[in-house]
Amino acid sequence: MTRIAILGAAGYTALELIKILLRHTDVEIVAVTDLHEGWPHVAMIHPSLAGRLDLCVEKLSPAEVAARADCVFCCLPHGVSASLVPHLLDAGTRVVDFSADYRLDDPEVFATWYNQKHPDPERLGKVVYGLPELFRDGIGDAPLVANPGCFPTSAILPLAPLLKAGLIEPQGIIVDSKTGVSGAGRTPRLTTHYPECNESVSAYNLGRHRHTPEMDQILSTVAGTAVEVVFSPHLVPMDRGILTTTYSQPAAEPSEEKVLETLRDFYADEPFVRVVDHLPGTKDSWATNFCDVTARVVRGRVLTISCIDNLIKGASGAAVQNFNIMYDYPETTAL
Amino acid sequence: MTRIAILGAAGYTALELIKILLRHTDVEIVAVTDLHEGWPHVAMIHPSLAGRLDLCVEKLSPAEVAARADCVFCCLPHGVSASLVPHLLDAGTRVVDFSADYRLDDPEVFATWYNQKHPDPERLGKVVYGLPELFRDGIGDAPLVANPGCFPTSAILPLAPLLKAGLIEPQGIIVDSKTGVSGAGRTPRLTTHYPECNESVSAYNLGRHRHTPEMDQILSTVAGTAVEVVFSPHLVPMDRGILTTTYSQPAAEPSEEKVLETLRDFYADEPFVRVVDHLPGTKDSWATNFCDVTARVVRGRVLTISCIDNLIKGASGAAVQNFNIMYDYPETTAL
Amino acid sequence: MTRIAILGAAGYTALELIKILLRHTDVEIVAVTDLHEGWPHVAMIHPSLAGRLDLCVEKLSPAEVAARADCVFCCLPHGVSASLVPHLLDAGTRVVDFSADYRLDDPEVFATWYNQKHPDPERLGKVVYGLPELFRDGIGDAPLVANPGCFPTSAILPLAPLLKAGLIEPQGIIVDSKTGVSGAGRTPRLTTHYPECNESVSAYNLGRHRHTPEMDQILSTVAGTAVEVVFSPHLVPMDRGILTTTYSQPAAEPSEEKVLETLRDFYADEPFVRVVDHLPGTKDSWATNFCDVTARVVRGRVLTISCIDNLIKGASGAAVQNFNIMYDYPETTAL
Amino acid sequence: MTRIAILGAAGYTALELIKILLRHTDVEIVAVTDLHEGWPHVAMIHPSLAGRLDLCVEKLSPAEVAARADCVFCCLPHGVSASLVPHLLDAGTRVVDFSADYRLDDPEVFATWYNQKHPDPERLGKVVYGLPELFRDGIGDAPLVANPGCFPTSAILPLAPLLKAGLIEPQGIIVDSKTGVSGAGRTPRLTTHYPECNESVSAYNLGRHRHTPEMDQILSTVAGTAVEVVFSPHLVPMDRGILTTTYSQPAAEPSEEKVLETLRDFYADEPFVRVVDHLPGTKDSWATNFCDVTARVVRGRVLTISCIDNLIKGASGAAVQNFNIMYDYPETTAL
Repeated sequence: MTRIAILGAAGYTALELIKILLRHTDVEIVAVTDLHEGWPHVAMIHPSLAGRLDLCVEKLSPAEVAARADCVFCCLPHGVSASLVPHLLDAGTRVVDFSADYRLDDPEVFATWYNQKHPDPERLGKVVYGLPELFRDGIGDAPLVANPGCFPTSAILPLAPLLKAGLIEPQGIIVDSKTGVSGAGRTPRLTTHYPECNESVSAYNLGRHRHTPEMDQILSTVAGTAVEVVFSPHLVPMDRGILTTTYSQPAAEPSEEKVLETLRDFYADEPFVRVVDHLPGTKDSWATNFCDVTARVVRGRVLTISCIDNLIKGASGAAVQNFNIMYDYPETTAL
Repeated sequence: MTRIAILGAAGYTALELIKILLRHTDVEIVAVTDLHEGWPHVAMIHPSLAGRLDLCVEKLSPAEVAARADCVFCCLPHGVSASLVPHLLDAGTRVVDFSADYRLDDPEVFATWYNQKHPDPERLGKVVYGLPELFRDGIGDAPLVANPGCFPTSAILPLAPLLKAGLIEPQGIIVDSKTGVSGAGRTPRLTTHYPECNESVSAYNLGRHRHTPEMDQILSTVAGTAVEVVFSPHLVPMDRGILTTTYSQPAAEPSEEKVLETLRDFYADEPFVRVVDHLPGTKDSWATNFCDVTARVVRGRVLTISCIDNLIKGASGAAVQNFNIMYDYPETTAL
Repeated sequence: MTRIAILGAAGYTALELIKILLRHTDVEIVAVTDLHEGWPHVAMIHPSLAGRLDLCVEKLSPAEVAARADCVFCCLPHGVSASLVPHLLDAGTRVVDFSADYRLDDPEVFATWYNQKHPDPERLGKVVYGLPELFRDGIGDAPLVANPGCFPTSAILPLAPLLKAGLIEPQGIIVDSKTGVSGAGRTPRLTTHYPECNESVSAYNLGRHRHTPEMDQILSTVAGTAVEVVFSPHLVPMDRGILTTTYSQPAAEPSEEKVLETLRDFYADEPFVRVVDHLPGTKDSWATNFCDVTARVVRGRVLTISCIDNLIKGASGAAVQNFNIMYDYPETTAL
Repeated sequence: MTRIAILGAAGYTALELIKILLRHTDVEIVAVTDLHEGWPHVAMIHPSLAGRLDLCVEKLSPAEVAARADCVFCCLPHGVSASLVPHLLDAGTRVVDFSADYRLDDPEVFATWYNQKHPDPERLGKVVYGLPELFRDGIGDAPLVANPGCFPTSAILPLAPLLKAGLIEPQGIIVDSKTGVSGAGRTPRLTTHYPECNESVSAYNLGRHRHTPEMDQILSTVAGTAVEVVFSPHLVPMDRGILTTTYSQPAAEPSEEKVLETLRDFYADEPFVRVVDHLPGTKDSWATNFCDVTARVVRGRVLTISCIDNLIKGASGAAVQNFNIMYDYPETTAL
C-alpha cells in the first residue's frame, strides 16, 4: 500500500488523477491540498467525487505532506511546483510533477519561454522525462519524474520512432494540434466561456506555445541533432482529447507501409500505444490512457495522426503509469 | 431615419441587436456605450462586427446620449437601467429597456425578488410590457417599453390564449424551461466555463428564478385572477434557444384539437408566432424572431411546447419588433 | 471466474458493458454476437476496444452461446430478446436482459405500447425488475433479470421513497426528462444526425414514450395504488446523461427538509444513490453508476431532480450491478 | 425582380440559400425541386422555413424550370448537376452550380478524382470559377458560374495573394482544415451520427479529398506554375465553420508585416474578406459571408489562418454574391 498526497486539488488533472487512483488497489490517498481553498471537502470542489473520497482539502507544508505520504502527485502551476518539490525530495518523498518545471534541461530555455527565473535550476538536466515509451529505464528508481505536457506526448509518440529510424528529416517538422477545452484549465476566462468557444474553432499561441521547447528537446535527443518544430495549437469545442497532425519531409523515397511498420515495431510491446491502420478520432481513446497513432504518405510528405485524451495519457493517466513503474506495480494498474 | 444609441455594448444581447439593426434600412446607430470599457472599438469587443460597424464604445452621460439619439436600446443590468432611464425620458428620448427594471408593476415585488429598492418606483405600473402579441396597442406611442424576459416570453405566449379562453385552470401551472448558455450572459463564471457545463444538463434557481414574478403578473392580468407558476429553469449545453414545456389542468374535458385551434386562432395574424402540429425543436427558430408553439393533451393534462431563440425573440429581436411598432415601421423590418 | 456472453454487440450499451467488464477481475468475456454483423473483430465495430478485447463478433445459436457462457447479457432489441431468452434459460444460462421484453407484468400492456404480441407471455409477471435499490432480494437467485429502462431508473429512484412514505399523492405526477443522444441508439437517423440535433433541444413522444408503462407499473407497486405518470422526454445535445425533473402534489403540508430526510434515510446504505443538497448536473454522475438525487418544495409542489448516466446506471452499469448480486460478487465490483 | 429556381432542396446549402434569398428584395423564388421528394411542402423538409416560404417541392424537367425561372441555383450532387445544366443553359436560363461538376478545367482530372466520366466535358475550361475576389470580371456576363468548394475558398483566399506576390514558394504548401459537420451534408451516416462525432476530432480523406485538385488548379493559375497542395481535412464537433491553417516556405527572407500588408492591400476593396491582426475563430464569421484572414511567420515558415462559414461564404452566400454580380445588384445585397 503506497500512501499518496495530491497537491493542487482544484483542477481537472487532479480530478482525473483521483478517479484513477480510486481504482488502484494498492494506494491510499492520504492528503489533498490546495493553496487557495484550504478547507472544503473535496466533494465541494468536485461534486462527482461525492461518496467516493472522504477528504478535506488542506493547506499543508511540504514537511507535513512528507510526514504522511510516500509519493506526491504535484498538480501545481509552473513556478510554484519547483518551489515546493525540493523540500519534498529532501524529506524523502518521491514526486510525480505535472508542471513544466522539470521537463526542460536548460534553465535559459525555461526562462525564455516561461518569462521567469527557474527556482531550482541545478536540478534541471537530471530529471527523467516521464514518457515511459522512450525513457522507461530512468523512471523506475527516479525520486522525481517530470510528467510530460499533453501536446508533446501527442507529437513525440508518432515522431520519435520515425526520427530514430532516420525515416524523416529533422528539419521543418510541422505539428498541428487540435485540443479540447479542458486543456485550458479550470479557471473561467472569456476565451473558455461556453458561448465564446462553443461552435467555434480557433488557433492560439501560434509559434509561441510553451510546449514547443519541450517537443524540441525530446525530439532533438531522439534524433541526435537539433530539431525545431513549428507548433500550432487549435482550440476545438469538446471537453477532452487531442488530435495532432504532423507533417515532415521523408529522408529518402517514402513508403507508407515502411512508416507504419516502423511505428508498429517500435510500439509492439507498449501497452498504451496502438498503431492502427484507420484514421483514429479522439473518441477512440477518450477517457483512456491510450495513444492511437497512424501515418500516411501524401504527395511525398509523411503525415502522422495521433490521438490521446489530454487529461489521461496527456496528464493523469501518464502520471499513474509513471507511478506504477516507480513503485513496481504492473504498469497498467488502474489504467 | 431613426438615430439609435445602444447602452451596454459588451453583452450578447447588444451584439445581436447590432446585427439586426445593421439590416434595418431606416436606422442609424449613432452611439454605443459601456460603463466599464469606455474606449475600444466595438469590433474589439465583438470581433464578428469587424468591418460592419465602425464605432468606438464611449462613456456618455444620459444628456449626451439624448443629444444624439432618438431612441435608446438599454442593455444594462437591472438596477442600473432604472437609474439612467428617467434622465433619458426627461430629455425626450424614447427607450426600449432590456432589463427587468420596468417589467413589474409593484415595487414591493421588485424589492422581494431583486433584493434592492427600486430606483424609480413611481413609474412602475405605467410602463407597457413589450410583448406585442398581447400588448401591441400600448406600444405604439409609449415613451418607454419594458422588453420581456426570455423565459416569460416562452411561457406566456403558449399559456395566455389558453387562460384567456378559460381552457386551463389558472392554479398549479408548471413551467419547465431548458435554455442555452448565452442566457447566462457574457461574464465568465465557473458554471458557464466550457468544461463544466458542456455535456451536462442541470437545474438552477428552482422556484427562485427572477423571471417567476414576471410570468405571474402577465398571466394574472390575462387570466383575470391570480396565477402563481412553478418555474424550473434548466441549463442545456448549446449556445442559444429556449424550449419551455408547460403542464396545466384543463378547466373542462380537454381536447387536443380544441387547444390547438385556440392557439391557431389567437395567433392567426401574428407574424412571429407559428402554431405548428409537430413537436418543434429550438433549432427551428434559431437566429429568428419566431416563437414556435404546439400543444398536447396527455392523460388529462394540457401540455404546451414552445421554442424561441433566447437572444432574438427572447431579447433583441423582440426589442426591434417593439421599436418598429413605436416608430411605425413595418413590424417585421430587419427581422 | 464467470464466463460471459454478450448478445447484440454493435450498440452503445454493449460497448459500455464491455468496458466495465474488462475492469471486472472475476469474469471472462467468451463470446460476443450480433445478428447482422456476424464476423468482424469487435474492434472494427468499436475502435475504442482495439487492443483491449480480442474477439470476433459471431453468429451463434442460443445453444452455442449456452455451451460457452454461464451468464448472458442480452443487448438485443425488444421482441428479438424474448424470442431467444427462453432457449438460453432452458439451456441453464442465466440472463440479464437489456430490452423491455421482461419489464412489464402484463402481456396486454406490452402489446398496447410495443404494437406486437409478446413472444413469451407466460413468463411475464415472474421476472424480477433489476433495480437493486427496490428489488435486491429477488435478484440474487433469479435466472433472468429485466434490466430497467434508463428513464424509469431516473424517475423511480427519486419518487419511490416519497410514495412509499406517503409524502406525495400518487395522482398527477409529472416526469419531465432531458436525455443525451446516445439514448436513441447507434443507428443513424435524421433526428440524431449531428447538424440536426446539435444546438437544439426538442421534445419527443410526449405521452407516448414506451417507458411510461414501466414507470406506472413500478410506482404503482411501490405506492400500493394505481399510478399513471405524465412523461415528457426531451432530447438534449450531449452524448450521455439524463436529468429528470418530477412534480408532484404533497399528501400533507410539505416540508423540504422532511422530503430530503426521507430520501436520505431510504438510500442511506445504497452504494450508488447519492442524496445531495445542491442541484446536481448530469456531469456529476457522468461515466459512473451513481444516481444523484435532490428535492425542493416550490409553491406547495414537491420537485425532485435526479441525474444518471443513461448508459451506465441507466443500462450497462445497472446490468453489472445486477450481475454482481446474482453471482455474489461485491455489488460495486468494476463499477 | 429576378425569378429564381432552386434544384435540390433537401440539403443544408439549399436551406441557407433560401434564408438568404428571403432577405433579397429583388428576387422571387418561383420553384423548388428535389429528385427524391417531389411533393411535400418545403416547410416539411425544413421546419425552420414554416411561414416563410410557401412552396411545394416539385419534380420538374429542365424545360419546366426554364419556363419559370430566370436563374437557377443548382444544389444537386456532382454528376447529376452536369446532366441537367446543359439543358437549362440551352433553354436560356443562367445557372449558379453548387456541385464540383464545372469547377475543374480538365475532364481527365475530374474522372480521376470523382471516379466517373464527366457528362459534359466540352464545357470544362470555359466556365468561370465563382470566387469574385479573383475572378469577378468573368462572372458578370457568365451564363454558368461554378460555385467554389468550401475548403478551396478557405485555402485559396489566404494563399493566392502571397503566391501572386511571389512571397511564398509554390511547392510544398500544406493545407490543414478543420470543418463543422454540416459540410458532410444532410444524409445520416454513422460518421455523422451525433454520439459518434460529438466530443471527437478526426481526420478523414487525408490526401484523397476531392477538393484537392480544385485548390491545385486555382493556385496554379494564380502562381503561374504548377501547385500541388497537401490537403488534410479534419472533422470538428460543431455545426458550421471552417478554419484552415496553411504552411508554406517563404520565397525570400520572410517578414510577418510584409505578409500581412500584402494581404491587406490585396483585399482592401473586398467587401467580404477581412484581414485581421488577431487570430480569428470561426465564430467571428459564423452565419456571415465573411472570410477572416491573418498570417504569422513562425521559425521561417509562413502560416495563414482563415475562417469562413462553410454554408455561407463556403456555399450559399458565395452563390448569392455571384448572383448579385451576374444580375448587377449591389454585391452585398442580402448578405
